Amino acid sequence: MASRPLRLDEPRMPDIHLDDLQPGQVHHLGRRRLERDEIIAFARAWDPQPFHLDEAAAAESIYGGLIASGWHTVCVFMRLFADGMLSRAAAMGSPGLDELRWLKPVRPGDTLEARLEILEVRPSRSKPDRGIVRARSVVVNQADEEVLSFVATLLFKRRPEAVWSGSADDGR
Amino acid sequence: MASRPLRLDEPRMPDIHLDDLQPGQVHHLGRRRLERDEIIAFARAWDPQPFHLDEAAAAESIYGGLIASGWHTVCVFMRLFADGMLSRAAAMGSPGLDELRWLKPVRPGDTLEARLEILEVRPSRSKPDRGIVRARSVVVNQADEEVLSFVATLLFKRRPEAVWSGSADDGR
Repeated sequence: MASRPLRLDEPRMPDIHLDDLQPGQVHHLGRRRLERDEIIAFARAWDPQPFHLDEAAAAESIYGGLIASGWHTVCVFMRLFADGMLSRAAAMGSPGLDELRWLKPVRPGDTLEARLEILEVRPSRSKPDRGIVRARSVVVNQADEEVLSFVATLLFKRRPEAVWSGSADDGR
Repeated sequence: MASRPLRLDEPRMPDIHLDDLQPGQVHHLGRRRLERDEIIAFARAWDPQPFHLDEAAAAESIYGGLIASGWHTVCVFMRLFADGMLSRAAAMGSPGLDELRWLKPVRPGDTLEARLEILEVRPSRSKPDRGIVRARSVVVNQADEEVLSFVATLLFKRRPEAVWSGSADDGR
């Protein structure tokens, strides 16, 4: 484990650029178990509706018991995406997403697993140092049922050598 | 302020049902100022990318300085929506949303204001106790620039008297 010397510049040397992404790739981003207390704490901070906060009220709701805020599931996806991929990627943020669906309730004790399916990769015409990726973000539970899906647009930098050999005529 | 006696059943007596919502209505949901420390704490928990966490790294990014996670802006919307409307509404959750766009960066010290524009109201055919609302969720900053927009699908209960007088032939 410690036989390779540490390099101080490693955090600035991402190994996933636009040029490493291709339609059809599935990136597995890891998993996380959601406990009751965390579900309630998230709801108290951001989404204080009775069926996310209170077991008795949740039992009387259409959900029949406590469920996680849909935004909690999204945030769990985001954290797994950040740790499992973006921390090694030359990522530049996102302008938005479409088709977000909460497909099944997430309940205390569920283990959520995230993945990212690359749909489309397009170098930018006006800014040859970067490009646009469309990717389906998916979260499944321990029964492999999809609980969340959305299609995000993501910006990634190109590899420097791809920029130098490309048509980078305006310098950006 | 305290001249009216408290009623213990008030939390269970919502005054916004499907029947109170109409296309064209704009519901103003309140505002909240986002401070630097809160932006960094949210990012550390859910979206640890350099331009949300670290001022020096953010200054070198395409954003030119620290910006809030887009999910933080969404969560601020959700909390304002919960406090400003859902706490008084017979709301039953959401199956999803479309067309989410992060239109401008949100920076430390920005004051965010949320509103909900009702686009469409449709009683359920199969479940006459409820209906479906499409609504545009909007967050603007202190310069009245839109920073976030999305179109959500929301479920609301109907008023009991609307259900009794309607075609509730299957009891659900």
